[in-house]
Order: sequence, then C-alpha cells, then structure tokens
Amino acid sequence: MTTTMRAGEIAAQVGGQLAGDADLEIGGIAGLREAQPGDITFLANPKYAAWLATTRASAVLVAADFDGEAACALIRVKDPDAAFGQVATHFTPPPPAYPPGIHPSAIVAEDAEIGEEVHVGPCCVVQAGARIGPRTVLVGQVYVGHRCTLGADNFIHPHVTIREHGVLGDRVIIHSSAVIGSDGFGYSVDDKGVRTKIPQRGHVAIGDDAEVGAAVTIDRARFGCTRIGRGVKIDNLCQIAHNVVIGDHAVLVSQVGISGSSVIGRHVVLAGQAGVAGHLVVGDGVIAEGRSGITKDVPAGQVVYGFPAAPREQAARVHAHVQRLPRLKEKVRTLEQRIAELEARLQDSGSSAPG
Amino acid sequence: MTTTMRAGEIAAQVGGQLAGDADLEIGGIAGLREAQPGDITFLANPKYAAWLATTRASAVLVAADFDGEAACALIRVKDPDAAFGQVATHFTPPPPAYPPGIHPSAIVAEDAEIGEEVHVGPCCVVQAGARIGPRTVLVGQVYVGHRCTLGADNFIHPHVTIREHGVLGDRVIIHSSAVIGSDGFGYSVDDKGVRTKIPQRGHVAIGDDAEVGAAVTIDRARFGCTRIGRGVKIDNLCQIAHNVVIGDHAVLVSQVGISGSSVIGRHVVLAGQAGVAGHLVVGDGVIAEGRSGITKDVPAGQVVYGFPAAPREQAARVHAHVQRLPRLKEKVRTLEQRIAELEARLQDSGSSAPG
Amino acid sequence: MTTTMRAGEIAAQVGGQLAGDADLEIGGIAGLREAQPGDITFLANPKYAAWLATTRASAVLVAADFDGEAACALIRVKDPDAAFGQVATHFTPPPPAYPPGIHPSAIVAEDAEIGEEVHVGPCCVVQAGARIGPRTVLVGQVYVGHRCTLGADNFIHPHVTIREHGVLGDRVIIHSSAVIGSDGFGYSVDDKGVRTKIPQRGHVAIGDDAEVGAAVTIDRARFGCTRIGRGVKIDNLCQIAHNVVIGDHAVLVSQVGISGSSVIGRHVVLAGQAGVAGHLVVGDGVIAEGRSGITKDVPAGQVVYGFPAAPREQAARVHAHVQRLPRLKEKVRTLEQRIAELEARLQDSGSSAPG
Repeated sequence: MTTTMRAGEIAAQVGGQLAGDADLEIGGIAGLREAQPGDITFLANPKYAAWLATTRASAVLVAADFDGEAACALIRVKDPDAAFGQVATHFTPPPPAYPPGIHPSAIVAEDAEIGEEVHVGPCCVVQAGARIGPRTVLVGQVYVGHRCTLGADNFIHPHVTIREHGVLGDRVIIHSSAVIGSDGFGYSVDDKGVRTKIPQRGHVAIGDDAEVGAAVTIDRARFGCTRIGRGVKIDNLCQIAHNVVIGDHAVLVSQVGISGSSVIGRHVVLAGQAGVAGHLVVGDGVIAEGRSGITKDVPAGQVVYGFPAAPREQAARVHAHVQRLPRLKEKVRTLEQRIAELEARLQDSGSSAPG
Repeated sequence: MTTTMRAGEIAAQVGGQLAGDADLEIGGIAGLREAQPGDITFLANPKYAAWLATTRASAVLVAADFDGEAACALIRVKDPDAAFGQVATHFTPPPPAYPPGIHPSAIVAEDAEIGEEVHVGPCCVVQAGARIGPRTVLVGQVYVGHRCTLGADNFIHPHVTIREHGVLGDRVIIHSSAVIGSDGFGYSVDDKGVRTKIPQRGHVAIGDDAEVGAAVTIDRARFGCTRIGRGVKIDNLCQIAHNVVIGDHAVLVSQVGISGSSVIGRHVVLAGQAGVAGHLVVGDGVIAEGRSGITKDVPAGQVVYGFPAAPREQAARVHAHVQRLPRLKEKVRTLEQRIAELEARLQDSGSSAPG
Repeated sequence: MTTTMRAGEIAAQVGGQLAGDADLEIGGIAGLREAQPGDITFLANPKYAAWLATTRASAVLVAADFDGEAACALIRVKDPDAAFGQVATHFTPPPPAYPPGIHPSAIVAEDAEIGEEVHVGPCCVVQAGARIGPRTVLVGQVYVGHRCTLGADNFIHPHVTIREHGVLGDRVIIHSSAVIGSDGFGYSVDDKGVRTKIPQRGHVAIGDDAEVGAAVTIDRARFGCTRIGRGVKIDNLCQIAHNVVIGDHAVLVSQVGISGSSVIGRHVVLAGQAGVAGHLVVGDGVIAEGRSGITKDVPAGQVVYGFPAAPREQAARVHAHVQRLPRLKEKVRTLEQRIAELEARLQDSGSSAPG
C-alpha cells in the first residue's frame, strides 16, 4: 500500500498507453461515479461509458480500442478490469494477517489434532476428535464440532458453525454465520398430523477449493453424505438440504434453495433466488436463470428460466405472448365485431333473398 | 456402531425376507447411487427403481411386493425406509454426548437459574434473570438473553441468539445461527420519508416440541408475543415477522417468509420459498405449494399455488392456458384469415348481386 | 412497568374519551384476538373491527370517530396505535441495560480505541486497530474486525460479524447473525469452467441511523465501498452484493436480494422477497412490490410489480388478462363455431346460388 503514484508509472506497470500528463499524481482508486480528483478508475463495461463525461477521477483505465473523449488522463490497456485490479493493490490496505497459534481464549479439546501453522483465533471452540490441517485459519468465534476433519489452508470466518463429523477438503473458504451440517428437515407424520423427528445421522463433505458464502445453510445427510464438489462456489444465504449432491465447479448465486436429495451436475449455474425441488437431477452444465423454479429433471446443457422452469426459448416465447395478451384480447374483440357484421349481412341477404 | 453385520442377521433384525447369501458381510450404508461393494442400501421411492440395475451395493432393502431383479442380495420388508433407518444406526457414529455441567469459559449471570443436568458449553453467554430447564443443552457459543425462560430438554446449537424475554417450551430444538427475538421491522415515517424506530417491546414464545432451523429469524412482537405453536417445524432460512402467530404442528419449509401480524393455522404446510403478506389469516390445514405468494386470507383446508396464490386447480388451469398461449395466438390468426375470406366472398357476392 | 392502572387513568394519560367504568382495573396489554379479561387492546386497522365483538379484553382504544358497539370499555383517541404504544410501556418490561465497561471475557486488541461509556459484552472480539465510538454497545459474542471504525451510539447484537475495515456511522443498529463485509462473489473463469477467486479488497460503509436486520449479509466491495446510506432500514435475511450503493432512507423488506454493483436510489422501497439484478440503477423513490424481480433500470418514482418487474398498472393489466385466459379461450372457441356456421351458410348459399 503506497500513498501516491504517478500516471506514467501506472501506465508502465500495466503495460498501457497514457494519454495525459505522466507526472499526474494518483492517490487512490474508486468507481467511475464515486471517484474524486486524485483517483484512478476504470471503464470495462461499455454500459457505463456515458459516466466518463462526468467522472471526477484524474485518470481512467480504458480498453485499447476506446475512442471516446474524456476530460481526464486515459490509460489504454488490453483488459481494464484486470489492470485496475493490479493498480488497486497499491491503494488498498492488505487483508489482516492471522499468524499461527492458538489464542488463549480458544477452547480446544485435548485430543483435537491441530496441524502446523494453524491459527485458532479468540473464542473459537474445537471439540473432541476434531482434526485441523496445516495453515488453516479459524479467525475467531468459530465452532468446529466433534470429529470434524478440516484439510489444509482452509479459511473459516467468524461465527461459522461446522457441526460434528463435517469433512472439508483443502483451501476451502467458509464465510461468517454459515452453518455446515445442521440437521436435515425430516419427520415422520402420524395420523393426527403430529411430526416425529427422523434422526439425521449423516454428515456434510465439502471438496477442495470450494467457497461457502455468509449465512449459507448446508444440512447433514440423513445417512451418508451431503456432498459439495470441488471448486463449487456458493453465494450468501443459500440453502442446501440433506443428501443433496453438488457436482464439481457448480455455482450457486445468492438465495438459491435446493431441496432434499437433488443432484446438481458439474458446472451447473443456478442464478440468484432460483429453487430446485426435491429428488431431481439437474444435468451437467445446466444454467438456471435468476428466480427459476426447477420442478423436474433438467437434461445436461439446457438453459432454463421461469417457474416452473422451462427451456429458455420456450419460456421466453410464452412470456412474450403473455405480455401481448391485452393486444390479443383486443384482436379477438375486433374479430367478434367482424363476425357479427358478417352474420348481420348474411341475415339481411338471407331475409332479403327472394323466396 | 458395529463394524460389520451379516445379511442374514440384518434380515432377521428388520423382520425381512432375504433373497441372497445369509453370510454376506455388510460393512456400511449408503444411497443407491453412492453405495460401494459391502454396503447395504434401500429402495423406497419407486422413482429410483431403475438405479437398482447399476447400484454397486451388496444388499438392498426393498418393499415386500417388489418383483424386480437385482444383481445383489435383496431383503424384502414392509417399510424399506424405516428398516434402513434401523440398520443404519449400526453403521453411523452416534451423535456426540453433552454431559451436564457449565464449561468454565461460559459466562453465566449470577442470578440465572440453571436446572439439573444442564449442559452449558464453551463460550456460552447466559444473561441475568435467565432460567434454563433441566437437561437442556447449550452446545457452545450460544447467547441466552436477559430473563429468557427455556424449558426442559431443549437442544440449542452453536451461535444461536435468544434475545431477552424469550420463552421456549420443552424439547425445543434450535439450529445454529438462528435468531429468536430480533426487533420487529416497525417505523413511523415523517413527511420527508425519514423513519423513526417504533420500540419493539414484546417477545417470542415457542411451544413444546418445536424445531427451528439454521439461520431462521423470528422477530419479537411489538407488544405481546410472536407465537410459535407446539410441534411446529421450521426449516432453514425462514423469516417470521413480529406478531405472527403460527398454529400447532404447522410446517414451514426452507426460505419461507411470513410478514407481520399474519396468523398461520394449525397443521398448515408452507412449502419452500413461499411467502405470506402481512395481516392475513391462513386457515387450518392450508397447504401452500413451493414458491406460492399468499396475498389474501386463505380458508381452512385449501391447497394454493402460484403468485398471487390461488386455489390449486384454478391456478393450474390458468397456468396450462398460459403454456398454450402460442397455440391460441395461432388459432386467432387462422380465424382472422377465415373471416377475411368470408368478408371477401360476401363482398364479391354483394357486388356481384344483381341490382 | 406498573402492575395495574385504572381505565380512567389510562384515558386521561392518552387524552382520550372513556365510555365505560373509570375504576376498571387494567393489568396487561395484548392484541384483540389474544387479550384476556383485565387486558387493554386497540383497534387501529378497520380490517379487524369484526374482532371487537369477540375480544375478551376489558378495554379497547379506538379511533375518535369509531361508532361501533363493544361489550367492553372503549377509549376514543386520535391515534389508537400511538396511544396503545404509550400505554404499553407501563405493562412491558423495559429492555435490558448494558452498562459501560469491557467484560473480562472479551478479547480486545491492545491498540483498539474504545470510546467513553462503551459496553463490550462477554466473549466479544475486537481486533487490532479497531475504533469504537462513545456509548456504543456490543452486547456479547460480537466480532469487530481489524481497523473497523464504529461511530457513537451504535447497538450491535450478539453474533454479529463486522469484517475488517468496516465503517459504521452513528446510531447504527445491527441485529444478530448479520454479516457486514463478507467477500463479494467474484471469480475469473478459465476455459475449463474452473473459477479463481478475485480478491475482494474493498469494504462496507453504513450511514448514520441505519438499521440492519438479523442474518442480513452485506458483501464488501471488490475495491472501494459497498455503501448503505443514512437512515436505510434493512429487514432480516436480505442479501446485498459487492459494490452495491443504497441511497439514504431506502427500505428493504425481508429476504430481498440485490446483485452486484446495482445502485438503489434514495427513499426506494423494495418489498419482501424482491430481487434486483446486477449493474442496474433503481431511481429515487421507486417502490417495488413484494416478490418483484427487477431486471432493468427503473426510472425515479415508478411503482413496479411482477417478474420481470413492470410498471404496476401494466403488470396488473397483464395479470388480469392472464386470469381471464380460460374465458378468452372459450370466446375464441365460440367465434370459431360462428365462423364455421357462416362458412357453411355461404357454402350453401354459394352452391344454391343460381349459376
């Protein structure tokens, strides 16, 4: 984190072409709209090009083929987004360090196995039989239940709960308030409609390089395993029910819900607020657009939309027809009048027809 | 938890009929798709019958009247699901025990009343005037606010917050990250659109045998009581606003939201991602299908669907018509042509009519 | 909190007109439906007027122009809701006090700056470089990350996580299990569909007088700032993605989700379970009704509804047409018959026409 850089230095660093004063001092980064004099910003999404006219930034990273005008310095680069990322590391504070060691306020069971260079932060609880792999960080106030197994280089944020027997691979990130291994929602019902809990004796397993968002809930399996594949990315406030299986590299955007025992294929993308009913198979590579509600199996590769979710083109066609319903209604009314007129004329011609 | 059992032993234990080798060694349990040689699995849902052909399991529990074939041993039983549950307890680790006692790291107010055989786990906080009934378990990092009253045999998971004055019956289970008694969302608005908080002075009361899922939020009443009935089961990530009343034995599946002051009847089932607007009455025994959005009172016993939610048959009929809209549009176009033709012929016949 | 009041005293206190026995003893408050003899309740929403006939309350606060009958005492007042609020403070326990001081079990970094009269409750964690303004309350088990800055008179409930570099204004309230500053959901994707995390180096800033509900998640910006304006009220279980900007005095009702980089104007109201796609601008004063899904920019002042959200009148018209689809279908069928009849008659008249 440096305090200032010159525009020329920045252009050199990102391999860009500067149009403007090389000695211009840049002291910070910001978005196009929020930038103040002295800031550098970037324009990656052409949607925002109009904002260039009004930005107060002193310099803007733009695409190599950008041919617009601006009142500030421009640095043309191949990938403005990536270049901005590179520049930004100079102007943002680095993330905190969590040095190895067990904080004296942490409660770690005697028989827990803590790997090398692990950070167990303040007020963490690590229960009996848990094993934590090398270099893993429990930031603080984390709960690791009995006989959990965490791999190497995990990063577990405050107020995460990992219930008993949970298994995490390597390089897994879990965000705050997430719950791994809560009981599945399973009951038997008697003839009076009173429910009795079915024991949920399985666990949750999460693959290498997966990331689980804040306040995500992943239920343990009734038996066996609720399984999250390698490289799966789950955004905040998603719900994953018991015995769900999520294939490698799938993506769940925020507020998605997946009901019990459904199987989500590899590289599936479920966009925000989508839902999947229980006991379904969603094939590899399926994309469900935002708010889709999947109620039956989806073949691999399909793009679906709407509720109940249907192939995108079909759903879009139906949706367009719905929007034009007022016009259709109008047309039917016109046809009705034309028919009435025809009927009247035929009536006339009929009645006037010579006997 | 034993290591292995013989197929004959298992059949005897569940009162089933074995077709296969009685000496076959079974060492684990799994789902049909996930089972490995040596595992026993079960087929309860006929939907999965086709998977029997490819399962690698060594034995499968099937229904008494199952007449399909399989390459592995079959055990015919009355209720394969229940039988599997029985067998599975031999092969899954038992849940952890939480022996009575107050962990030295727990912070318990001097005047809190802690019942017999209560477990107060590490880093729990129990505030002044709280009372905790016998045999209740606070696993760890639980917050119990001032003057809360918890009954007997409750089970409160890590990172649960029970705010001041909360009242829980007996045998209540609350899952991690749930919040009981957060402030209701109530403001007065001035003529500039600036909101002032209305004090939320009531509390939450939860009946015997209720279960509250992970990251569920239940707001305290403005005055009086947000009331969750006996035997109510609430799945993860549901939201229950201030002054809501939920009748005994109702079921809320994941991600359901209920707005302020609505009254949900006894034995109501609200399926996943459903919503209920404020100040409504949802009658006893109502079933709202997944994603339903209830915007007006629903009479007892009705099954509703869609948004705005309507009686299921009506909603299904409308939905079917929507799906057939492209065809209706086509038909209207055809009619238009036939009318134009009729008009043309009448025109001809009119003009050609002898004067 | 007193034990009883007389009806006459209450009427005097709220400046109302009593119809009934001034010596009547009132010992509690409750809703119309839940009230027991001895309770006072209120009728503000005319929708509930019918319940007056069956309430068991001893007295009811009603509007000055109320002309119905009741079996109990009535107190006519200008604003029954406000009057009830006034009365209720006599009958509800006051909220707990959180006196200044740092609980010995709290872990506060040496270089953290704790203002005057701050309450740091049991098992809180305050990391290095954090600053907490005067009179702020951290109830207990709160996490305040490195170099966070909290203003004066904040109130932070149990199990809140405020990640590093978070900035809170004055009088901010954050409810339990909320997460401020979790990583934004940003990845680069390679040609095999494998995602690599893009560092999320920005932070979250929350304005004065904002309130954040239970289990709300607000992601830190990729760079710069996810910004929540002054006086913004966010209900439980909402999701706010990275780089979102929410204007002053906006309101987000429960379970709303806002995708990355969208800008929500001042005084916007997003009702329950609404969603906003990414990179959109929602103008000042927009109202999105419950469950709306906003997929494109919305001009200031518009009221929108449905998914994809459309101006309310247009959406309502389309919706009404959809509900009448079965009738439209029926009408088209009738027209078809009339056309067939016309065709038949023309055919007849044609064939019978003299050559």
